[in-house]
Amino acid sequence: MKNPEVKIVGAGLVGTSLGLALARQSVVATLEDQSKANLRLAVEYGAGVEQGPEPDLVIVCVPPDLTADVVIEQLRRHPGAIVTDVASVKSKIATEVLQALPDAAARYIGSHPMAGREKGGPAAARADLFFARPWIITPAEQSSEAAIELIRDVALRLGALPVELSAREHDEAVALVSHLPQLVASLLANRLNLGTSEQLGLAGQGLRDTSRIAASDPGLWVQIISQNSQAIAPLLAQLRSDLEELSESVSNIETSGSLAQIHGILQGGNSGVARIPGKHGGKGNNYQVVTVVIEDAPGALANLLTFIGEIGVNLEDLNLEHSPGAPIGLVELQVLPEVAGRLSEQLVTNGWRLV
Amino acid sequence: MKNPEVKIVGAGLVGTSLGLALARQSVVATLEDQSKANLRLAVEYGAGVEQGPEPDLVIVCVPPDLTADVVIEQLRRHPGAIVTDVASVKSKIATEVLQALPDAAARYIGSHPMAGREKGGPAAARADLFFARPWIITPAEQSSEAAIELIRDVALRLGALPVELSAREHDEAVALVSHLPQLVASLLANRLNLGTSEQLGLAGQGLRDTSRIAASDPGLWVQIISQNSQAIAPLLAQLRSDLEELSESVSNIETSGSLAQIHGILQGGNSGVARIPGKHGGKGNNYQVVTVVIEDAPGALANLLTFIGEIGVNLEDLNLEHSPGAPIGLVELQVLPEVAGRLSEQLVTNGWRLV
Repeated sequence: MKNPEVKIVGAGLVGTSLGLALARQSVVATLEDQSKANLRLAVEYGAGVEQGPEPDLVIVCVPPDLTADVVIEQLRRHPGAIVTDVASVKSKIATEVLQALPDAAARYIGSHPMAGREKGGPAAARADLFFARPWIITPAEQSSEAAIELIRDVALRLGALPVELSAREHDEAVALVSHLPQLVASLLANRLNLGTSEQLGLAGQGLRDTSRIAASDPGLWVQIISQNSQAIAPLLAQLRSDLEELSESVSNIETSGSLAQIHGILQGGNSGVARIPGKHGGKGNNYQVVTVVIEDAPGALANLLTFIGEIGVNLEDLNLEHSPGAPIGLVELQVLPEVAGRLSEQLVTNGWRLV
Repeated sequence: MKNPEVKIVGAGLVGTSLGLALARQSVVATLEDQSKANLRLAVEYGAGVEQGPEPDLVIVCVPPDLTADVVIEQLRRHPGAIVTDVASVKSKIATEVLQALPDAAARYIGSHPMAGREKGGPAAARADLFFARPWIITPAEQSSEAAIELIRDVALRLGALPVELSAREHDEAVALVSHLPQLVASLLANRLNLGTSEQLGLAGQGLRDTSRIAASDPGLWVQIISQNSQAIAPLLAQLRSDLEELSESVSNIETSGSLAQIHGILQGGNSGVARIPGKHGGKGNNYQVVTVVIEDAPGALANLLTFIGEIGVNLEDLNLEHSPGAPIGLVELQVLPEVAGRLSEQLVTNGWRLV
């Protein structure tokens, strides 16, 4: 297949990353951005060029709020091009585009590469941002097969995993697995503003993990929440109803039934979290954990992993545990159950400190 | 100082871990457990012996619900011993103990080593469970100086970091940094029970982190929540009030002020999460991230870390990014800002693939 001519509108994190990823596939994208500084930075990074030929494909990578208008503008400016976007909410944009330009409906396909970082801008871009991540394609009824095929092909060439959903299915899915967790983390982190430094000094890994994504950009997220409010609202209503019951039970702990109610929430949490699939698209994480103590010094972790490599054990996951105030680290090695025994034995035999 | 004679009541995760940690300090603890199987397992692991001399110190490591009764029983059985416990809620137990045995008040000191795992039982025990973790000591007014000193000494010898708080201060602190995050994670994970497998297949690291601790033991946690309901209830009430406002704003997204309200929650989350101190007891995490692509094969991570060790760079933290369905891994190296430039440069010069 001939390389398509690609134009990227918006040289932020996603646009610049797309340009870098395409460059690796020998596709030189044309870049456009209202910000001259962003544009120059992206070009200097090698994400594309400022002037190029008439595009076969335009990828709109601007903030969600501006996406529909920019898509419409690009469909008008490039009557021969297929236009897609990368916004993380799809229905509202599709509706606006199809209403404004019904005649161009076959040429517009929404898409959403599910990749991002807690920081934005072209300087945070990386060519592998899309590698091994789902890239959701949300065709409308009017979308042409050729258009769907083109976006699918680009996604595959960048190492992403294309998934086809309707815009509504997409929005409901991300409301659950992305937007709700964001709001929950933010709600929890808000409570920390009233804690004392002494209290926060006792924070462990649980609080850190649960609140991590509360560090995300409020400006971007208010747009996402606002565009997907229809799908998020029922989830918040259910959460609110659960929290009301939980709050009543905890406030009236002596009342009959309160403990059973709290137990139910905790147990429902067990079954809910077990439904999240693990690495390699498998079922929930069933790895075994082997924990090793290492010194917090250059080379310590490397020595451990060199040894593990030498005995031919593959790590499924690895977690360095924070040790507040102490110069040691605990390394949690996650491995397949069938190799855990051999790994532990060989580590101990060779002088590693297991815990 | 002469080694104290220590008795541990309850050979679960914490009791067995204590026994193992004490054994490394040449202190052979006497173990007691209602479950013969747990007791034998703990003894076989080397956590202590079944019969020992009259103790100087009794450490009660039974579930929170049973703690007060067992502490009272041990104070009676060993009139010369100092008794402490490790329950994660302190006020209620202290009140019950001091009411039942006012004359023994000087000999009882509550404590709480802030260490645990998502799984329990003696088989999950590890000698380094307490290493570099806070060990909170909650003396009452009546507690003797000698008793406080003894517990402090044991905590220090096991590598823990003793912190002195009143029982009430303790309970309020853990309500915020431990009990509230647990309930929030459980509430979020409950929502996943209604999601489809297709939706959950799109889960990324954000959802995984935010819901991880929802996998904790409901039986243990219902006891903790119930004993600390007084400190948790106001936090849940505040959370509920925030969620109500948020839910109203999202449901009525067109209403004036709704976006500002949502933005406020997201921004409050930014400032809240920034208050959690980082590693080494420092301020919030200000490390710079350098991301490297590696193959998901034995030795790949080791080669990378060996190289980093050789160029003398110390890692502050490391995160392996999951790559659902793909045989590669992204390694996020967190380093001090002053070495990030050199690290990136040397990695690239030596053929590593940076993103």
